[in-house]
Amino acid sequence: MNNNGRNLTMLTDLYQLTMMYGYHKRDKGEQVVAFDLFFRKSSGDNGYAVVAGLEQVIDYIEGLNFSDFDISYLRSLDLFDESFFEILKRLKFTGDLHAIPEGTVVFPYEPLIRVKAPILQAQLIETALLNIINHQTLIATKASRVVHAAQGGTVLEFGLRRAQGPDAGVYGARAAIIGGCSGTSNVMTGQMFGIPVRGTHAHSWVMSFTDELTAFRAYAETFPENCLLLVDTYDTLKSGIPNAITVFEELKQNGHNPLGIRLDSGDIAYLSKKARKMLNQAGFVDAKIVASGDLDEWTIWDLKAQGAAVDTWGVGTALITSRDCPALGGVYKLVAEEVDGKMLPKIKISENPFKITNPGYKKVSRLYDKDFKALADLIMLDDEIIDESRPLTIFDPVDTWKKMTIRNYTVKDLLVPVFINGAKVYDSPRLLDIQAFAKKDLNTLWDEYKRLKNPHIYKVDLSMKLYNLKNELLKEHSV
Amino acid sequence: MNNNGRNLTMLTDLYQLTMMYGYHKRDKGEQVVAFDLFFRKSSGDNGYAVVAGLEQVIDYIEGLNFSDFDISYLRSLDLFDESFFEILKRLKFTGDLHAIPEGTVVFPYEPLIRVKAPILQAQLIETALLNIINHQTLIATKASRVVHAAQGGTVLEFGLRRAQGPDAGVYGARAAIIGGCSGTSNVMTGQMFGIPVRGTHAHSWVMSFTDELTAFRAYAETFPENCLLLVDTYDTLKSGIPNAITVFEELKQNGHNPLGIRLDSGDIAYLSKKARKMLNQAGFVDAKIVASGDLDEWTIWDLKAQGAAVDTWGVGTALITSRDCPALGGVYKLVAEEVDGKMLPKIKISENPFKITNPGYKKVSRLYDKDFKALADLIMLDDEIIDESRPLTIFDPVDTWKKMTIRNYTVKDLLVPVFINGAKVYDSPRLLDIQAFAKKDLNTLWDEYKRLKNPHIYKVDLSMKLYNLKNELLKEHSV
Repeated sequence: MNNNGRNLTMLTDLYQLTMMYGYHKRDKGEQVVAFDLFFRKSSGDNGYAVVAGLEQVIDYIEGLNFSDFDISYLRSLDLFDESFFEILKRLKFTGDLHAIPEGTVVFPYEPLIRVKAPILQAQLIETALLNIINHQTLIATKASRVVHAAQGGTVLEFGLRRAQGPDAGVYGARAAIIGGCSGTSNVMTGQMFGIPVRGTHAHSWVMSFTDELTAFRAYAETFPENCLLLVDTYDTLKSGIPNAITVFEELKQNGHNPLGIRLDSGDIAYLSKKARKMLNQAGFVDAKIVASGDLDEWTIWDLKAQGAAVDTWGVGTALITSRDCPALGGVYKLVAEEVDGKMLPKIKISENPFKITNPGYKKVSRLYDKDFKALADLIMLDDEIIDESRPLTIFDPVDTWKKMTIRNYTVKDLLVPVFINGAKVYDSPRLLDIQAFAKKDLNTLWDEYKRLKNPHIYKVDLSMKLYNLKNELLKEHSV
Repeated sequence: MNNNGRNLTMLTDLYQLTMMYGYHKRDKGEQVVAFDLFFRKSSGDNGYAVVAGLEQVIDYIEGLNFSDFDISYLRSLDLFDESFFEILKRLKFTGDLHAIPEGTVVFPYEPLIRVKAPILQAQLIETALLNIINHQTLIATKASRVVHAAQGGTVLEFGLRRAQGPDAGVYGARAAIIGGCSGTSNVMTGQMFGIPVRGTHAHSWVMSFTDELTAFRAYAETFPENCLLLVDTYDTLKSGIPNAITVFEELKQNGHNPLGIRLDSGDIAYLSKKARKMLNQAGFVDAKIVASGDLDEWTIWDLKAQGAAVDTWGVGTALITSRDCPALGGVYKLVAEEVDGKMLPKIKISENPFKITNPGYKKVSRLYDKDFKALADLIMLDDEIIDESRPLTIFDPVDTWKKMTIRNYTVKDLLVPVFINGAKVYDSPRLLDIQAFAKKDLNTLWDEYKRLKNPHIYKVDLSMKLYNLKNELLKEHSV
């Protein structure tokens, strides 16, 4: 159900299969390795990201299965031999997968997902994991920015028609809910994930009647308890709002409370303030004002600053596509290889120091102060333990002279087991529970990290042990 | 199969259903109306768009069917009554749908799809039609820009891991092929649409061996006939290319022709020229150079100008997300209503003149000169006929004094029937045939319309009859 009934086994890049074949032919296919999935920069220079997509990753991994149809297609490529197909036919995920739960606030270089598995499996799943996590994390993060800009106002996701295909609409809306949207126009997402769906009528409804008042009356008659009217088809102030008020008065006489109006064009600051006054004067102080029409976090922030009287923001294109930055650059890097039962660290060198990987089988811990505000994150080797009873000195992994000693802190490991030896050991929470968790997690972050522009940079440091290991490996490679 | 086995009936905005319910409750559900799907501006100020997505639209419409599961979900929303569900359970598309075939070069305001159907059906399908056409047209157009920049070089689509979810990867790759890409890394798209898939190995392959030469030898041994080596894991010029040449020589001694090398980082202009020289000096003049790594049409254009010796361009994020403009703003507007068997034109007024719709049940014709280059497009009422034997004067619909009289022209109607009375009367061509058609169609366009920046604006005019009709309706509304 999570991937909409589809099997996504073939959702991979050809080079995963050619590499798998190469490993298989050299009897290296069962070599256990570890990969980290992480990003180096949040989308659009945001100060954090809200991780999302794990539920679909789990569904994908549980569904891994090359069908006969798949095998015969692969056979037609004339690249592989039958011994490989025998392996593929039996292929299942038998490894360990740890992940940071959906809705968690995350930062650059942190392993969002850590895979430990035979290289054939670990390699195959790279593309789908990146595709799913990159997309949903991107949109959840964007949604959290828009919700932040709305400063307590309600945000609805309205972007399905401009999304990059059906999945971008469906899972984008899912991610938008995680990021804090209160509902979506997308019926399929509502059905799949049990979240609120919202929507009333379009301009075409008004146009299909002889006049606006008749159209409004018809809508009110159909939905006396859910009457929200779009008032900008002809003239918002001269016709739309007066007609809406007429219909609201008729509803009131019949004992119904109108929901409110929607503005979809014109200057929202001016129109919403005028509309609020007109509605109040007519006695509809509880009627809500919904705004839509090419909104994003910047416009909402400005409109709020100008005192726009908007209760609910319907955000479409800019949110569902993360318009200013439509891709999160998540990567999936080999970090360790099992030798004699031990995970031997591996490093990827680059001329660009930011592209050098953090080697080894690692975990990431978040340090909180006594008020449960996040202080810093620490990437460590998996077997390291922090003694909370003792002061901890952390340091910047680039400018190592930048140090901080913390006391009275608590530690939380972010990665949780999801698959162990191929068995699923984790149940995804319901979507609205993930949303609630995300909201709580965002609250552990000081506001300076949430600034829309030039946020303060949250500390993600390496443990001394990991830092030293990385430098040793760098030295070895530079010989 | 086209929508990957899914039924997308529920892929709609809630307001389509609330409006449908409203029409149904007022016995207006069977009212026949016409909607046009069009965009007002191509993505990123491109001079044209390459329309794509019709095959998936057809599949969607043929699959329209509310299941019992869907109905019980809709019932749970407490918005609708049982009489509506009876209608939904039986709902199928019974109308006419005309569309411009995939791969056609199209321009602002042209109806890409024209729907004539009972309003219940016409309204329901709005969201999915926009979602599918907006997405695939966006990516096909972007791909055609990238292919244009490559000036005869091969372009491969490599973006699955950064696409906005599985569909954005799968159908984005499909659209990229329509736009002129020669292949994709995406195995699922290859399988679904019978198109070439490409890919060799990643840095992780090299890292998983003790050294680069061993890794290359292992790859060459696995794929002696398809040996393309990624040469930038450690040091491209000092290690990568020399090791590749060593392995190529070994292949040659065994009677195999190496395919070439891939560069994924560093300065592609400098490195590719150096690589070309080194390969040529070693006698591998036929070995190809593939470049990848955050490319887009601008970078490719510049690299070509700098004499980069690249044969094949692997383009990822920028193409699969149309990064600089990740949404096409296609809309779907009511243009006519059937009264007494005739399609009565409807107009949508706006304070913004560009948002005023072209009323009526229309078609669009392309005018070609005797060399079969496109001269202009003309949007007309459906019953208008152009007499090719007579000169034709066309005029700009805004600056009406801009006129042009054309002689020796031929006319082609762009809209073709796809569904008539609900029956499918059109078969989608195979994807590679659509690609070939798109290439031919792009060739009918003068180069000035294809400039990456500030393209010349192609003429899309209104027939005199349509122009007059529009002005009459505007006058009526402004009374």
